[in-house]
Amino acid sequence: MPARLHQLSTATSADLTARVAASALATESRMSPDVDGWLAEKRNQPFESTRLALARLTDPDGWYFAPGTGNLEHRSGRFFSVEGLHVQVGRAHGDGHDREWWQPILVQRDIAILGIIAKEFDGVLHFLLQAKMEPGNLHMVQLSPTVQATSSNYTRVHGGRPARYVEYFTEPGMGRVLVDVLQSEQGAWFHLKRNRNVVVEVTGDVPVHDNFCWLTLGQIRALLRRPNVVNMDARTVLASLLSVGGASAGDPEPGGLHTMTEVLSWFTGRKSHHELSARLVPLDSLVGWHRDDERILSEDGRHFSIVGVRVHARTREVHSWKQPLLAPHGPGLAGLVVRRIGGRLHALVRAEVLPGYRDTVELGPTVRFMMNDYADTPADRRPEFLDYVLSARGGVRYDVVQSEEGGRFLHAETRYLVVEAGDDFPLRVPADFAWISFDQLLALQRHSYYLGVEARTLLLCLLLLCLGNL
Amino acid sequence: MPARLHQLSTATSADLTARVAASALATESRMSPDVDGWLAEKRNQPFESTRLALARLTDPDGWYFAPGTGNLEHRSGRFFSVEGLHVQVGRAHGDGHDREWWQPILVQRDIAILGIIAKEFDGVLHFLLQAKMEPGNLHMVQLSPTVQATSSNYTRVHGGRPARYVEYFTEPGMGRVLVDVLQSEQGAWFHLKRNRNVVVEVTGDVPVHDNFCWLTLGQIRALLRRPNVVNMDARTVLASLLSVGGASAGDPEPGGLHTMTEVLSWFTGRKSHHELSARLVPLDSLVGWHRDDERILSEDGRHFSIVGVRVHARTREVHSWKQPLLAPHGPGLAGLVVRRIGGRLHALVRAEVLPGYRDTVELGPTVRFMMNDYADTPADRRPEFLDYVLSARGGVRYDVVQSEEGGRFLHAETRYLVVEAGDDFPLRVPADFAWISFDQLLALQRHSYYLGVEARTLLLCLLLLCLGNL
Repeated sequence: MPARLHQLSTATSADLTARVAASALATESRMSPDVDGWLAEKRNQPFESTRLALARLTDPDGWYFAPGTGNLEHRSGRFFSVEGLHVQVGRAHGDGHDREWWQPILVQRDIAILGIIAKEFDGVLHFLLQAKMEPGNLHMVQLSPTVQATSSNYTRVHGGRPARYVEYFTEPGMGRVLVDVLQSEQGAWFHLKRNRNVVVEVTGDVPVHDNFCWLTLGQIRALLRRPNVVNMDARTVLASLLSVGGASAGDPEPGGLHTMTEVLSWFTGRKSHHELSARLVPLDSLVGWHRDDERILSEDGRHFSIVGVRVHARTREVHSWKQPLLAPHGPGLAGLVVRRIGGRLHALVRAEVLPGYRDTVELGPTVRFMMNDYADTPADRRPEFLDYVLSARGGVRYDVVQSEEGGRFLHAETRYLVVEAGDDFPLRVPADFAWISFDQLLALQRHSYYLGVEARTLLLCLLLLCLGNL
Repeated sequence: MPARLHQLSTATSADLTARVAASALATESRMSPDVDGWLAEKRNQPFESTRLALARLTDPDGWYFAPGTGNLEHRSGRFFSVEGLHVQVGRAHGDGHDREWWQPILVQRDIAILGIIAKEFDGVLHFLLQAKMEPGNLHMVQLSPTVQATSSNYTRVHGGRPARYVEYFTEPGMGRVLVDVLQSEQGAWFHLKRNRNVVVEVTGDVPVHDNFCWLTLGQIRALLRRPNVVNMDARTVLASLLSVGGASAGDPEPGGLHTMTEVLSWFTGRKSHHELSARLVPLDSLVGWHRDDERILSEDGRHFSIVGVRVHARTREVHSWKQPLLAPHGPGLAGLVVRRIGGRLHALVRAEVLPGYRDTVELGPTVRFMMNDYADTPADRRPEFLDYVLSARGGVRYDVVQSEEGGRFLHAETRYLVVEAGDDFPLRVPADFAWISFDQLLALQRHSYYLGVEARTLLLCLLLLCLGNL
């Protein structure tokens, strides 16, 4: 790494904290278009994503079912593949395993860049977002990071034009890195997937191409109050930024109900408690799933399907393509219970075991649940705190539906819900749960694989919406 | 997690730092035996570990070669297994992969507890270490943590007695956790292995069983100057303790040549640059390896073999058993170049790609090399900085042979070498290398999977030996 001779760097987090707060308070900017009109126009372009029978997805130059395994792969060997996973979950101190299942899973080895360019205008930090079409998106177009590209994109395996602005993140010296950290995606649907969450601040001129615009954090905050506008990728990058520019960034030992040592020990303990074996197996071999001409479906019809789509889009690197998507059967719920303890806001997080995580456990919201299972699940077998979250006995602080990754999932929507509980809500919670202060969550989020993707969205929304009120 | 009502925890790292330093300065204690005599006596007990042809390792109740795969497994399904690994390594921006190989690898899913009990006597922190026999150890007995046990041990799969003191780490409320973090082991030999590095401080009486003794950090420091006394497990736990009790513990943004944001971004960048695919495959299918009655060996005779041993030991949970071990062909070298930059001690670390790591890359020493490859490797293909480290042009600060895990490896020795370079050593280094200050390394080590096992040993030795002189 290039060295700066004769000079030791010093922390700049206090400065960044002030600048992040100022941007979050700026609700207008001369640099930004009329966002509503601009987004409506972008959504009004001729995009088309139509369902395609799986049997018609395959192509001599494109997707195919690999002989011997039935895995759905691209002939280039890039992009992603759909493979099978055999999962066994148990407890380290128990005998054998408690649960065992098979499922299709998306496998993508290369690390995607989710990169946002930041720049000050009139002394206020702005972020360059993109109106990006993805085939699985609700409304087709949502706001994404400046760059959202796998190496398959930026090395142009698909033969299209390179992703705009990618050089800001792949070439040295284009700007100052504010944050740069690997984080996971959905551990139930992706095998070991992680993305590079990066923000680079530049001082020089940045050309604003078609479909891009500068927004302040205050403007983004307003958009987060609306469903399905700010995409998953933009949300996770901005959440990462708060880990270095949040209110208490730079506090070595952010306090809370538990010390950081206790929080880390609890997390280690949960990983030790849950024993998980997840092995990739041939897609053709999955117990409880079958493939027909239309799709891959579980025999009980639950969970999700693997389907195909055909896409026409004039603004993407290539104008037309076919691809598989994972289609969840109904919306998810990500519900977080928060409360003040000793004056500080705390979140009740859950150590969530998912087969696609690199290290078994990451922190999830208090409740994560697929809502179409609700009617089928007897009350005594519903997840802990689900009924509390849905009853709205606490004060609802946030309740908006947002989309998950539209490049891999078809209409995957999650209802993000934050409920503030009163002092009567118990501090003593079951072993997989812990009250962790927001300052502590931000400190953890500076490192990889502590917070799952839903927890990161919830942290972002709550911190931006409550700004100045924590 | 149990909550402490109406009370927010505060940081205690400053206090711990002072106590760690005081213990490191205490070179004698009324609590400790004459260590030399005690250890000699322990090493003089009737242990026996004898090589056994692989064909004679198998047993109707024990180890067997699984039909279909040839994997070497235990019939209980616990302990560990020897399986095959197919590895492809490339660069994210490159075409295809640069290197491809097959190898046997040890697979162990459950998390071992490496736990040390700490207690103050006469105001000085002492650590309860164990004179532990392992079949692959040089001198059979080395000093290990209080508890060094997989869940196979402490749930007594092998039918022996439970590991002493394990309840201090598995039951709540036995003491105060000082550190508790998962860290990797050798990523070249273990698939995704990690251990729980934990120190619990107690205030009540602790019985001292046979083969256990209390030592101060100062006494342990003296033992680290000698070869093959303090085992890998004890070294990594004590290194973890320094991450919360080191000189600068609690500094939010420890400085150095690069800021923490730059260090983290470099680490993320290295993970993004190196693309690694490592898939478990049948042990029978490995290209370039073969199994005979004696052992599993690579066709060029390099790297390592898989061998069997028969063990008789009166002090272990069971008195006699057979097991496989991985036997490296010769010693390793772990060489670290350090130098002062702006008055602070920095280490030149390398982003090391190993197939068994959970996330592709961890920080290794400047040079890690199997010494028996030295004669065969032409000078222009030797690892960067190897000749510098061996030439001792810098000042040698540490040069001692230590052992790796004797429960899995047969006589795996590593020469740990720290060389202090002068101001003429370049600050600008190749992309896989970075100068990181010791304070920054300690801050990283509080979290999982930043520092590899050799880097942790080097950090421990250098910090303890240089105490008060950083």
